[in-house]
Amino acid sequence: MINYPNKKKITSNKITSPANRGMNFETMINQTNDFYLDNDIAVIYKKPIPIQIVSVDYRVRSAAKIVEAYYKLPSTTDYNGIYKGRYVDFEAKETKNKTSFPMKNIHEHQILHLERVKKHGAISFVIVYFVSLGRIFFLDSKYICEFYERSKDTRKSVTLAEFEEFGHEIKEGYRKPVDYLKVIDEFYL
Amino acid sequence: MINYPNKKKITSNKITSPANRGMNFETMINQTNDFYLDNDIAVIYKKPIPIQIVSVDYRVRSAAKIVEAYYKLPSTTDYNGIYKGRYVDFEAKETKNKTSFPMKNIHEHQILHLERVKKHGAISFVIVYFVSLGRIFFLDSKYICEFYERSKDTRKSVTLAEFEEFGHEIKEGYRKPVDYLKVIDEFYL
Repeated sequence: MINYPNKKKITSNKITSPANRGMNFETMINQTNDFYLDNDIAVIYKKPIPIQIVSVDYRVRSAAKIVEAYYKLPSTTDYNGIYKGRYVDFEAKETKNKTSFPMKNIHEHQILHLERVKKHGAISFVIVYFVSLGRIFFLDSKYICEFYERSKDTRKSVTLAEFEEFGHEIKEGYRKPVDYLKVIDEFYL
Repeated sequence: MINYPNKKKITSNKITSPANRGMNFETMINQTNDFYLDNDIAVIYKKPIPIQIVSVDYRVRSAAKIVEAYYKLPSTTDYNGIYKGRYVDFEAKETKNKTSFPMKNIHEHQILHLERVKKHGAISFVIVYFVSLGRIFFLDSKYICEFYERSKDTRKSVTLAEFEEFGHEIKEGYRKPVDYLKVIDEFYL
């Protein structure tokens, strides 16, 4: 399956750690979620990419063939589900930058969504992968919303130092490339 | 946007009540969810339809054009989100039948998904719309799983009488065509 038509993303998401060398960040998260699912730990899925379908051809074969469609901006985050009775919601992003994460990588409606679900009782956050550093951070939506507000006035990005201060680094687990539930266990439950 | 390539579905989902005459069932649920969202009652979304993208044309215009893609079977249900701190997950189906709902209308993995999330603490259910009767029922996943098991041996459908006995009829609300949170308020919280 082809990813978002963001070629930068496609070429940039190689992990540098030996175990996962060459593995796509999305794949790492999906593998982690598969592990959670297979071991009955949590039920968390990536949502399908939203597509605007314009034209479908029903003639060609038994399956209908979509012949014209466009990517749509997602209204929500990419991932949600349930863990220990709690609604979990997050967005996963990556950057090639070594010192900061540009806020423009997250859409405003995704920020709003994270804020909204948090208000209703969710555990909501972003996971940011610094590709060049091979480091992954979990940052609560509280902070990402604050940094988003700040980006309207002054600094347009979140520094690595800020991730270190306000976030939690996610260490690679055995068969769980991005074991973010460990952070939730430790700091939320 | 074109719906699933199920022509029966497309032609059958007209509601018979005067207020919503001609309104698509999916539209009714989406309008209800929009109402919940706009009034800060709950954050529940329909997931995008899963698509297998085969070929994308980047030349034509600024937006990438998908020129070959196919519908995929969904792994989960169509709707999920959060209400009063609880994870909510459901599938919405309709039938033209007047006396029963055929179990073949729900995929096995959707049944499994409803069962799984329930086990983790979700409020999970199906909403079934009897188009010809203009009646809508909320049925807990507990029952839909039981009826699914039964359908392997004997009866392949759930009767209207069973919906009346084990389910909750959803009445149309003002600006909330399918006010299912009312059932949750009354029987779950």
